[in-house]
Amino acid sequence: MSNAAQPAEVTRTLARFVTASQPSDVPGPTRHHATRTFVNWLGCAVGGARHEAMDIAIAALSPMAGPAQATVLGRSERLDILHAALLNGISSHMFDFDDTHLKTIIHPAGPVCSAILALAEHRPVTGEQFIHALTLGVEVECRIGNSVYPDHYDRGWHITGTAGVFGAAAACGRLLGLDEQRMTWALGIAATQSSGLREMFGTMCKPFHPGNAARNGLMAALLGAQGFTSSDRGIEAPRGFAHVMSTRFDPTQITSGLGESWEIDINTYKPFACGIVIHPIIDACVQLREAHGLTGEEIESIEARVHPLVIELTGKKTPRTGLEGKFSVYHSAAVGIIHGAAGEREYSDSVVRDPKVVALRDRVTATIDDSMHEDQTEVDIRLRDGRVLTCRVDNAIGSLARPLSDADIERKFRGLAQDILPSAQIDRLVGLAWKVGELARADEVARAAAAT
Amino acid sequence: MSNAAQPAEVTRTLARFVTASQPSDVPGPTRHHATRTFVNWLGCAVGGARHEAMDIAIAALSPMAGPAQATVLGRSERLDILHAALLNGISSHMFDFDDTHLKTIIHPAGPVCSAILALAEHRPVTGEQFIHALTLGVEVECRIGNSVYPDHYDRGWHITGTAGVFGAAAACGRLLGLDEQRMTWALGIAATQSSGLREMFGTMCKPFHPGNAARNGLMAALLGAQGFTSSDRGIEAPRGFAHVMSTRFDPTQITSGLGESWEIDINTYKPFACGIVIHPIIDACVQLREAHGLTGEEIESIEARVHPLVIELTGKKTPRTGLEGKFSVYHSAAVGIIHGAAGEREYSDSVVRDPKVVALRDRVTATIDDSMHEDQTEVDIRLRDGRVLTCRVDNAIGSLARPLSDADIERKFRGLAQDILPSAQIDRLVGLAWKVGELARADEVARAAAAT
Repeated sequence: MSNAAQPAEVTRTLARFVTASQPSDVPGPTRHHATRTFVNWLGCAVGGARHEAMDIAIAALSPMAGPAQATVLGRSERLDILHAALLNGISSHMFDFDDTHLKTIIHPAGPVCSAILALAEHRPVTGEQFIHALTLGVEVECRIGNSVYPDHYDRGWHITGTAGVFGAAAACGRLLGLDEQRMTWALGIAATQSSGLREMFGTMCKPFHPGNAARNGLMAALLGAQGFTSSDRGIEAPRGFAHVMSTRFDPTQITSGLGESWEIDINTYKPFACGIVIHPIIDACVQLREAHGLTGEEIESIEARVHPLVIELTGKKTPRTGLEGKFSVYHSAAVGIIHGAAGEREYSDSVVRDPKVVALRDRVTATIDDSMHEDQTEVDIRLRDGRVLTCRVDNAIGSLARPLSDADIERKFRGLAQDILPSAQIDRLVGLAWKVGELARADEVARAAAAT
Repeated sequence: MSNAAQPAEVTRTLARFVTASQPSDVPGPTRHHATRTFVNWLGCAVGGARHEAMDIAIAALSPMAGPAQATVLGRSERLDILHAALLNGISSHMFDFDDTHLKTIIHPAGPVCSAILALAEHRPVTGEQFIHALTLGVEVECRIGNSVYPDHYDRGWHITGTAGVFGAAAACGRLLGLDEQRMTWALGIAATQSSGLREMFGTMCKPFHPGNAARNGLMAALLGAQGFTSSDRGIEAPRGFAHVMSTRFDPTQITSGLGESWEIDINTYKPFACGIVIHPIIDACVQLREAHGLTGEEIESIEARVHPLVIELTGKKTPRTGLEGKFSVYHSAAVGIIHGAAGEREYSDSVVRDPKVVALRDRVTATIDDSMHEDQTEVDIRLRDGRVLTCRVDNAIGSLARPLSDADIERKFRGLAQDILPSAQIDRLVGLAWKVGELARADEVARAAAAT
């Protein structure tokens, strides 16, 4: 793959790259990043499986669903691969707890993994092929995102949906063995389905977006495979994706260094199931808890100096529901101390109303400190015995500078899955997920994630 | 329904209108327009049923399709309602021969009729309910189109897809009996799937757009019916459909006079299966043929004075395929004389290569006349006996000023269906289609359109 790709032919350049790439072209560390992305996504998808939105979508759509081709992760239903892709994409983004490509705020795994895991149940592939396709799909969606960000996002597009459909099409097209022309068409069929509005944030339509991108990208690949024609320039043409849906378009972000650097290397994973601005404060509280064996009762007050956005976005003093808890730096700090975690469970209604949590929450203050950047905080904990414990965080856990360890990702996985699947099944599932790249059939993971 | 609707609440205003409207609110002539729209659409869908794009889409998607709930019109397959809506939407726009709302160049029937006819096979409704829902769906999509046209279209959006998904959602939501809140959500779920790029013109993705709008609008209604939440302001919010996808947005085009005027009253139907700029010339040739019993052999030359766009868009002197024939004013004039028609059959490869047609085509000239507007022409036919016959057309047949008669629409229907279904079946089908509004079950028409 030459660097001198023609900006005039970015769709074809991507198609050529995706069809020509070999698993051995992907460095070992990048393959490991892909595995981390997969494990993190799988935990999120299993964790979201019993959300009301899933029940609703399944009630609405299963009467129209096709053969039992693929698993709805963490559930007992098996549906056709298009519906399975849709539903797994919805559940994986349900808690806003999935991965983030920070350069574009794309959540890359939802569209890609949801599509290829469903497809792999219908058309078996090896783990190596699967991880390779995953890596290529993420590369395609993130590079397309890079080429139009931030104007495209600022305009109001939910970029996980709009760019994700290309990633799903590319990854599925790869697994289906499309040639360059059919891959080009598949990307065009993806382009003409690109959709998803930020207005939907706060409703069930937000997690619908990665699911819809997965379903539509998979459909684009299936159609392309049979020779359904599309534009050869779906991304770059004057009336194609980039110009119609963005004011900024830098095609070199798509073509430059293609195959030499990998966007999945800079994918990140949230340790906490809430907005990223309060991650430094939770991080500091968890660190102090672990360093000093805190339980909460010995604490007189917690004082955090924070970036102004923390108060603006998460200043809710007396949250009453789990969802409100996500917008409360006070609740978040309290569970960091009492539970040493801030996963989906710590944002349940019952934990938000737990008297012990409420009592500590009321002893938390947050003060704006304009010297702090968004990923910084300084937390002072004043103990009843008069001591003051301090923790400064310059980069929160989960940021690119301080990525989650594999053990952190596995702990997150177990926390998400614990109310959904029996613990023995979780043990087996997480073990399979880590070694997905070595499996003879990648879909063994999907079957292992079915509820019985 | 008050005229003083709040522009700030256009999505809810539409939802309230669609849920509150009664069949008796729709005047008789408007119901007849809806029936004409339905008959014209059905003929187009049956006519496109055997196109290669249909074979490809069915091969790609039928392995994932659900129960045999609905007819693929003009074919023997029965698929789940989502796939049937998709496929019937594709076939109905295959020849670009469907209806046109000239104010927005939306092709209104494809998204709406494809969705509701499939749904009606699964959830029976009366013909009265069906025609009412069709009318409401067209109203919703065309009013949304009016509010953003032309900027939205000029930006590169294929408005039949982007606005059509709302029409399908509204019409299906009405048949499913959604309340105002759920209809509002269904419109929001439609908004966040709105898509379709003009870059795709000339490829199979163009007819894919109304099909996709039908499928996605139907899905939006099914999800909304179960309580899948969305924004209440999917159309008008700062990050909603209108502001993200258009620079112009006039919400009064949606709310003003709602329920008092009907967009379906100004729907139009193409008499000829080619670009609208050559319709006046074909019209003139057909008129001269019929007035003078012409067959072609007595003609020495045909001279048309035409608007400049005719030469620019359809100046192909020696077309070799059916598709090229559509871009040849010369071929089009010749078949107008020889066949008295310019339907899909007259743009087949064999007719384009017919020596008799070629010989006459070579005696046609077209001269730019800057005094002609786009819907005008003057045609002189010089006969071998020295006589000159002249016909001037100021508004082509099929325009708002000279709408097709019901008999014209039926003739078009029969021409489209003749190679697809046996003639006795066509007789029965067209009879049922004209009286769809009186049927106890509207889906009787769909079953009558299945190939055996």
